[in-house]
Amino acid sequence: MANQIILANRPQGEPTADTFKKEEVSLPELKEGEVHLTTKYFSVDPYMRGRMNDAKSYVPPFEVGKPISGGAIAEVVESKSESFQTGELVLGTLPWATEAVVKAEGLQKVKKEDVPDHYYLGILGMPGLTAYFGLMDIGKPKAGETVVVSGAAGAVGLVVGQIAKIQGCRVVGIAGSDEKIQMLKEQFGYDEGINYKTNKDLKAAVAAACPDGVDVYFDNVGGEVSDAVIMNLNFHARIPLCGQISLYNASGTPTGPRIQPMLLTRSVLMKGFIVRNYQDKFPEGIQQLSTWVKEDKLKFTETIIQGFERLPEAFLGLFTGKNQGKMIVEV
Amino acid sequence: MANQIILANRPQGEPTADTFKKEEVSLPELKEGEVHLTTKYFSVDPYMRGRMNDAKSYVPPFEVGKPISGGAIAEVVESKSESFQTGELVLGTLPWATEAVVKAEGLQKVKKEDVPDHYYLGILGMPGLTAYFGLMDIGKPKAGETVVVSGAAGAVGLVVGQIAKIQGCRVVGIAGSDEKIQMLKEQFGYDEGINYKTNKDLKAAVAAACPDGVDVYFDNVGGEVSDAVIMNLNFHARIPLCGQISLYNASGTPTGPRIQPMLLTRSVLMKGFIVRNYQDKFPEGIQQLSTWVKEDKLKFTETIIQGFERLPEAFLGLFTGKNQGKMIVEV
Repeated sequence: MANQIILANRPQGEPTADTFKKEEVSLPELKEGEVHLTTKYFSVDPYMRGRMNDAKSYVPPFEVGKPISGGAIAEVVESKSESFQTGELVLGTLPWATEAVVKAEGLQKVKKEDVPDHYYLGILGMPGLTAYFGLMDIGKPKAGETVVVSGAAGAVGLVVGQIAKIQGCRVVGIAGSDEKIQMLKEQFGYDEGINYKTNKDLKAAVAAACPDGVDVYFDNVGGEVSDAVIMNLNFHARIPLCGQISLYNASGTPTGPRIQPMLLTRSVLMKGFIVRNYQDKFPEGIQQLSTWVKEDKLKFTETIIQGFERLPEAFLGLFTGKNQGKMIVEV
Repeated sequence: MANQIILANRPQGEPTADTFKKEEVSLPELKEGEVHLTTKYFSVDPYMRGRMNDAKSYVPPFEVGKPISGGAIAEVVESKSESFQTGELVLGTLPWATEAVVKAEGLQKVKKEDVPDHYYLGILGMPGLTAYFGLMDIGKPKAGETVVVSGAAGAVGLVVGQIAKIQGCRVVGIAGSDEKIQMLKEQFGYDEGINYKTNKDLKAAVAAACPDGVDVYFDNVGGEVSDAVIMNLNFHARIPLCGQISLYNASGTPTGPRIQPMLLTRSVLMKGFIVRNYQDKFPEGIQQLSTWVKEDKLKFTETIIQGFERLPEAFLGLFTGKNQGKMIVEV
């Protein structure tokens, strides 16, 4: 018997504890090409909110009554696949369950590095690769430029700022508490921080923190924070659009100032992306990131929540800023 | 004595006849490095509205009490510059005046091709080059893709559609009258047209005209027309932002649906540009465009208004759709 957590119903606006339901299930028989796994670590991520809607997006929606699924590290208990052996660790998109029988196809073997296993959900996984490709391929930061990061204390933001520093940029982070700002500056090399919750005039705050204007804006949050940064863009600025977490729980279409006139008059590039667009280049990205980690140029922080049944709580915490860096649940 | 037209005051919202004032002036003495010109043709363009505001943009604002200036073709009457001789034709940004004494620096000699002189204000000038570089460098259309053009019957739009056809795309134009739509389809090879003034549900109209979705959206107008197109974008779509004429007369900041969530979930690229960004490549662009013109693959239409004193009227007409293609005033 395994425990699993299903989508009980599609949330309107903000999800709550009632969005989820815990169930006990028996596992199906292991068939050819499948593996039986025990899950070790789950990643909870803002994009998962989008999958709770019944809407066209880059990943299909979760089904009501079926388990939520997300990035996870698991151990192989039994294998009927030639690719995996008992005891090996795998990375994949797995159902929120303590144990699962899944197809081996789509699972990735985790190569043991001198780093903790759960780094493959963070700095060497989706958040690290997202930061790396979004910043380097779309942001194209040049030494001496100013890079602003929203959601700077999140899993992706922490990595973006550090890579921008490695590139020789001035880096300004926007986050939602003075503690986070302090952490960004003291532990992660950010030059300046802006608390968007306490600042009355965000546009002026960005201008003050960026006396030479903004060359790259790595956007994780959208909404009014982004409006303020966009008012301070330099000619030929670049905006990697990585997330819009401030809008994910909106019901209806959020409105705001039209940004096209600003992008036009300053010849700005804005590009949405998902990390999967760079799938072919993942080995290159993991290689570069792990080099920086081993050289101690890239640090990482996680919030690890203990206990499978706390997955919903960990997920809901993303929207109220409960995490510092990557939010992980240890089963 | 020459006639000139000055900016009488900065318009709030839509400019009117009172925004302009005609004056008689005497010409200064011709100094070394200068030329004395009689103007032949003036180009009036939407971007000039921006220069009437006292705001930071890609070109400095017009000064109140000084002549408006814009793209023009003129003939050299007298020259104290080694670069130009009496009788030659030049292209440059010139004051709205029947005659002018200006520095030779910054003027471009017009190479006589087998095309009318004023083509250098149109198909082989700013509008043609804007269409060419915006579409080819940012839009990167591929054969079989769907390209939507707003302001399709304008000077830039007419060229964009034809270049997209040369690239093997399906091309849909948005314009403001049935006559314009008919012209786009019958004379300029557009596959489909949408009249944004008579269509109640623009989003549905775009969906119907683009059964395979929109791969490239060449945006000249912004506002609600763009909202409708953006709702129909394909994954990896590209948006060259060329103009936002629907918003230029707005006082205050126009608002609308936030577009970042859509750009994010579909990995869309949006990039503002001005033709000057491609200055180094102008010879290549003029070469390609004039080849297509001579091969009869690229047609052009102008609205030529006769009479220097009608410059304000011609300019104001841009905002009410009085022009088909490039709007030119013959002095």
